[in-house]
Amino acid sequence: MTDTTAVLKGVRENIRRELFESVLPFWDRHSVDPELGGFFACLDKDGERYDDRKFMWLNGRQVYMYAAMALSFSQQQLEDLSGGRLDRAKLIKDATAAADFMYSHGVRESDGQVYFSLTRHGQPYHMERKIFSAAFLCLGLGVLSAALRADGCSAKAGELEDRCVVLLKRIVSWSHDPSPLGKEACAGAPKTSPLNVPMILLNVLDELQRCGALSPSTGVGFDVAAEEAWCVEEILKHVRFEEKKVLEAVLADGSPCPGYDGRHMIPGHAIEAGWFLLRYAERTGEDSLVQTAEHMISWSFEEGWDPKHGGLFYFLDAEGRSPVYLEWDMKLWWPHNEAMIAYALLYERSRQDAHLQKFVQVGDWALRHFSDAAGGGEWYGYLSREGRVTHRFKGGPFKGCFHVPRCLLMVYQILGRCLEPTPQPP
Amino acid sequence: MTDTTAVLKGVRENIRRELFESVLPFWDRHSVDPELGGFFACLDKDGERYDDRKFMWLNGRQVYMYAAMALSFSQQQLEDLSGGRLDRAKLIKDATAAADFMYSHGVRESDGQVYFSLTRHGQPYHMERKIFSAAFLCLGLGVLSAALRADGCSAKAGELEDRCVVLLKRIVSWSHDPSPLGKEACAGAPKTSPLNVPMILLNVLDELQRCGALSPSTGVGFDVAAEEAWCVEEILKHVRFEEKKVLEAVLADGSPCPGYDGRHMIPGHAIEAGWFLLRYAERTGEDSLVQTAEHMISWSFEEGWDPKHGGLFYFLDAEGRSPVYLEWDMKLWWPHNEAMIAYALLYERSRQDAHLQKFVQVGDWALRHFSDAAGGGEWYGYLSREGRVTHRFKGGPFKGCFHVPRCLLMVYQILGRCLEPTPQPP
Repeated sequence: MTDTTAVLKGVRENIRRELFESVLPFWDRHSVDPELGGFFACLDKDGERYDDRKFMWLNGRQVYMYAAMALSFSQQQLEDLSGGRLDRAKLIKDATAAADFMYSHGVRESDGQVYFSLTRHGQPYHMERKIFSAAFLCLGLGVLSAALRADGCSAKAGELEDRCVVLLKRIVSWSHDPSPLGKEACAGAPKTSPLNVPMILLNVLDELQRCGALSPSTGVGFDVAAEEAWCVEEILKHVRFEEKKVLEAVLADGSPCPGYDGRHMIPGHAIEAGWFLLRYAERTGEDSLVQTAEHMISWSFEEGWDPKHGGLFYFLDAEGRSPVYLEWDMKLWWPHNEAMIAYALLYERSRQDAHLQKFVQVGDWALRHFSDAAGGGEWYGYLSREGRVTHRFKGGPFKGCFHVPRCLLMVYQILGRCLEPTPQPP
Repeated sequence: MTDTTAVLKGVRENIRRELFESVLPFWDRHSVDPELGGFFACLDKDGERYDDRKFMWLNGRQVYMYAAMALSFSQQQLEDLSGGRLDRAKLIKDATAAADFMYSHGVRESDGQVYFSLTRHGQPYHMERKIFSAAFLCLGLGVLSAALRADGCSAKAGELEDRCVVLLKRIVSWSHDPSPLGKEACAGAPKTSPLNVPMILLNVLDELQRCGALSPSTGVGFDVAAEEAWCVEEILKHVRFEEKKVLEAVLADGSPCPGYDGRHMIPGHAIEAGWFLLRYAERTGEDSLVQTAEHMISWSFEEGWDPKHGGLFYFLDAEGRSPVYLEWDMKLWWPHNEAMIAYALLYERSRQDAHLQKFVQVGDWALRHFSDAAGGGEWYGYLSREGRVTHRFKGGPFKGCFHVPRCLLMVYQILGRCLEPTPQPP
């Protein structure tokens, strides 16, 4: 066994324990509303619920996560890997109940917009004027439909797929023209292209195609490949090759946006967009994008990593000024998850030690600082710059069953592939 | 000279230096747009501008601040106190130009709502669906009109006063029924009474009456005293005597609001609302409110003060859970300003050592951690829990020429009154 193989095996076993024994069991035990359907997200250190709102982002993403697990593992595998803690049938059942509850209560009849949050009983609580609630619900419905279809439940699968496509068409339309979302565009505000919209749309389209819920030849009412190409084009506007930076907002024509908005950088976002682009490039064979994706990841990782205390800053200013946002220097869990995925994917592709080292650097730091496997399970989400846990809860309005398990599942699978024997020349 | 007198004199001299030699000169030198009128707020460590938007909150408040200075000091006094750094005529001129610029560009014709921010040239940049932009513009216009009237400029004073009253009537109306502001009320969201609306309205009404811009007998189209009484009633709904806490949100009937919103506390807000109430009680002779005001201040100060690192937390959760907001444990400048004002007012009233000690505790901590009098001037605004400066700028979208100088001016005046010889019995 080479050193690298030993490292990969050791890391993979840590990842297995985190995913199957700590993270998913936490959500399985504490987040499910068995009575009404749907997932709670506001869960304190040991899983105690401190608010019973149901957030659409987090419900859509948890449905996605459960479905991704069900697509990846059989009942027996899941039982073995989790030491009996996880039951595939229960994951499917809870995901289906959440999908039904959130879709039936969370979509506004008048215009098809999707609420950001509902009361426990499904009454509308808050509406954002953004695409993301719809996008994450759509993602969850689509991947769950694929899992149900794989299980032979084709009627329910078809129903969810239809709902997924209804939402997807709206999201595509709103991505190009957000005016129906009702956010007032003031005459003096620069017309910007945001990074988050095309990157999330690209990821949704990618995931739906990978699981088979969407195929370019399905008649969904828009040209899937053209939409993906549009997303890529929009993302690339934010990549500044000369400055080696990825900006959150540029003007619609790609030129710099004035003021602090135009200097705003979120390293975790840029790294995530980088691996979305990498996966797109690999799926479509557009090799020319691979180098750009790697640039997005490595520039953002190097600039985002705190040389003093370790960990990735939440926000940066492209000119090195203080970002105006209060939380800029905090260390959030999810940018570390994105960096783990990104470097694992780069390593799988290149087998370069440099990529593995970065993966180990961020993975070690993240596990050491965020994981609470030895305590209540799951990860903490928020640290001070110095690495002190600032928020004791495991779930909140923006932290659910998603970034941690998506990262752990993907990395578990990637490392598994890396450990497979390479085919020998004949 | 007694010990207390020596303390008061020493503190007052520090305050004088901060206000007249560091804080106001910073804004006077760096924030004025001499060409177009209005004040910039995004000013880096040494005053360099990093964004040229004009924020309505901060413009209204800076107009107020300049007018309050002009009402308090003559040209000669200002020159003497500032060692020639400040010129009363220039303050009046800059405030008037800002008032004209922001009113003429910042009020939406269709419905009288006030933009949150404008471009440098006055185009609308962002609209919030809240009363505060209108409230702070109204406050600035009213107090400036009083300063101009005192200077004999009655035509301009009358014009500003008319505009002030136009805005005031809207604010009063929106405070009771915010639906014209356009924020969607979802069916499942609890109908809450917020603390910030009545406290800001109470302060605006108080300031306008103190400077003479508004009198209850003026025909402004609403009953001023009744509005103030309504504000007090709304504020008191948030004071939980049994738990000794002041909550940011309660249900409209005063009962607890479910979930984390209902446990949200902002010690700086509660302390500020406390001294607003104290001043109202003193002006109207409603002595029964004085004790409540003191409770609001002392409960919030004691619970908000960080026993480990000192300073006031930004947010707390009434059950001692982690607030969901990322920045909860940061130390912001303005809660410390509010606590300085509150304890100075309480001391002036009571002459109790305990109040003076609290004033010195928070004032010392604040000056030591926030002041940059020895550097670029003004105060830093944002510290980590441990007291490290996290944002190097002096002004930003929510930090302008207001909390620091309002505090310093009020404390300078209060301590001056405390140092006056008490009348001897005959």
